[in-house]
Amino acid sequence: MASEETLIVDCDTGIDDALALLYLLGDPGVRIGAVTTVFGNTDPGTAALNTLRVLELVGRSDIPVAVGAEHDRRGNRHLAPDVHGADGLGNTDLPAPRTSPIAEPAAELIVRMARENPGTVHLLAVGPLTNLAAALQLEPELPRLVKHVTIMGGAMLHPGNVTPVAEANISNDPEAARIVLRAGWPVTLVPLDATMTEAITEEQRRRLAEFGSPVATFTAAILDLYLDFYARHAFGERKAACHDPLAAAIAVGDVEPLLAPVVPVDVETGDGPARGMTVADLRGQYRGFPENGAATVRVVLETDRTFGDRLVDRLCSDVPNLGAA
Amino acid sequence: MASEETLIVDCDTGIDDALALLYLLGDPGVRIGAVTTVFGNTDPGTAALNTLRVLELVGRSDIPVAVGAEHDRRGNRHLAPDVHGADGLGNTDLPAPRTSPIAEPAAELIVRMARENPGTVHLLAVGPLTNLAAALQLEPELPRLVKHVTIMGGAMLHPGNVTPVAEANISNDPEAARIVLRAGWPVTLVPLDATMTEAITEEQRRRLAEFGSPVATFTAAILDLYLDFYARHAFGERKAACHDPLAAAIAVGDVEPLLAPVVPVDVETGDGPARGMTVADLRGQYRGFPENGAATVRVVLETDRTFGDRLVDRLCSDVPNLGAA
Repeated sequence: MASEETLIVDCDTGIDDALALLYLLGDPGVRIGAVTTVFGNTDPGTAALNTLRVLELVGRSDIPVAVGAEHDRRGNRHLAPDVHGADGLGNTDLPAPRTSPIAEPAAELIVRMARENPGTVHLLAVGPLTNLAAALQLEPELPRLVKHVTIMGGAMLHPGNVTPVAEANISNDPEAARIVLRAGWPVTLVPLDATMTEAITEEQRRRLAEFGSPVATFTAAILDLYLDFYARHAFGERKAACHDPLAAAIAVGDVEPLLAPVVPVDVETGDGPARGMTVADLRGQYRGFPENGAATVRVVLETDRTFGDRLVDRLCSDVPNLGAA
Repeated sequence: MASEETLIVDCDTGIDDALALLYLLGDPGVRIGAVTTVFGNTDPGTAALNTLRVLELVGRSDIPVAVGAEHDRRGNRHLAPDVHGADGLGNTDLPAPRTSPIAEPAAELIVRMARENPGTVHLLAVGPLTNLAAALQLEPELPRLVKHVTIMGGAMLHPGNVTPVAEANISNDPEAARIVLRAGWPVTLVPLDATMTEAITEEQRRRLAEFGSPVATFTAAILDLYLDFYARHAFGERKAACHDPLAAAIAVGDVEPLLAPVVPVDVETGDGPARGMTVADLRGQYRGFPENGAATVRVVLETDRTFGDRLVDRLCSDVPNLGAA
């Protein structure tokens, strides 16, 4: 990752959000300026507590955590206790964190940090895009202040996960997603097309459990329920998609997509069966995706399918941050 | 094809509709009871003239041709002269047919023949579904009178062709498509996922031209513009998708799909970017598509990609009907 870059991670921690945070925290070269939370996998207050737990686990309570949107732009809230547990961390029922979130709301923090660090903030959004849409409305200049936006979300030529065609993060607030994807800033979008092919398996979970460090033990524990869910509802075996960690690895340049065209992307916000779907124009697929001057969203369709091992290697490593646990 | 079956082909002839008709007419075992036409590739009157030309070419003017819907259920009409030519047959400017359509409207013909032949009519629809929707409204018992419905239409895990996510036949009348796909009758849907992988190439077109029979010469002529269009807008080389002929071959049992789950299918009828999209629930793809008792639509996702040769073999054959040309 470019050394002058500061990440703001907007997340709904969440099992795979925790993995994404730990992946990033394990790289001493990555600077996380703040974590902001949003409803999604769990409510934003719980997501903040879970984020604080993760930061405490690796001795990084210096990173501020700000709480964001409680619900989507229509006032509805959709949580996923069946996927992430009632506590958002696989029903591991961890003790409360010792630290607390800051008082500043998530969208305001995003705007303030972008103003204070023009051209160097990289927003990594791995939950519903409600906070980012709110930040864009607080500061219309945000697209020019921010360096890049990487988003885990959407489903293109892959089925959805909450409806036949919609992925959870986009589906949870399609109106916000439309605002964010139309803002004209440079976006890298990491949809299910990529994340469903980068799996973490039961075998890898056991490797984490056996490694036995606090971080590896924690991740092995929270993955248990997650693998159950994916076995039942997706893969038919105990393996799960690396949604948020893959987006994190792409954001910091650790994973170079094999196929990632820059194409027009919109979001269906009607109330029909395609609500919450990302509509990307991939009709150029047989012609190598001819350049489209107006498009600003890079859609990651394919990575090399080896990320699960790289993620587990990182979580079992003794880099300073993770070793501090 | 089951010998007691009578096909009604509902089409918007059209280059690939003509190929589909000739493919079917080349099999003495296939009984075509009637052809009905609809707007789409061209207007329904022109589609009827083109159908009559095709029938005359093979000496089958005994098959009645009935004209159907001029426009979609909202009163709009979308034609495709850029794909099929101003005349619907690749701008080949053929002389007028000697025969004429019958007076009976398409939807009424469909209902009458289904009532006269309960349980034996197979509807093969390769245009917008406006006539079939109208027939369902004329005769609510139609789903119990008809044996099967095979439809060329939709795009599932493949991009659309008239919008990023919508295929032409469905997109041309989404409201009609929704009525037809929700009618509860047994449907086989052949979307772009299958048809875009079954190509006819410039080499095959030359084989037709060199074969030199009236049918082969005709098909080589109408394919010229079609290959141009596909080279420019889809494949980047002179080859075209076998949309309608593939659906015809599947309808009569000549092509056995390799992957064709029976899954819930709906149509997006809102006015957002996904309008006209077929929304199929393919989330069971990693688990072999577990059975869904409520679903009635079989979605053909994969065939063996050898159909182009089989189509050209048929068009170059001397079976009685085609030999009559």
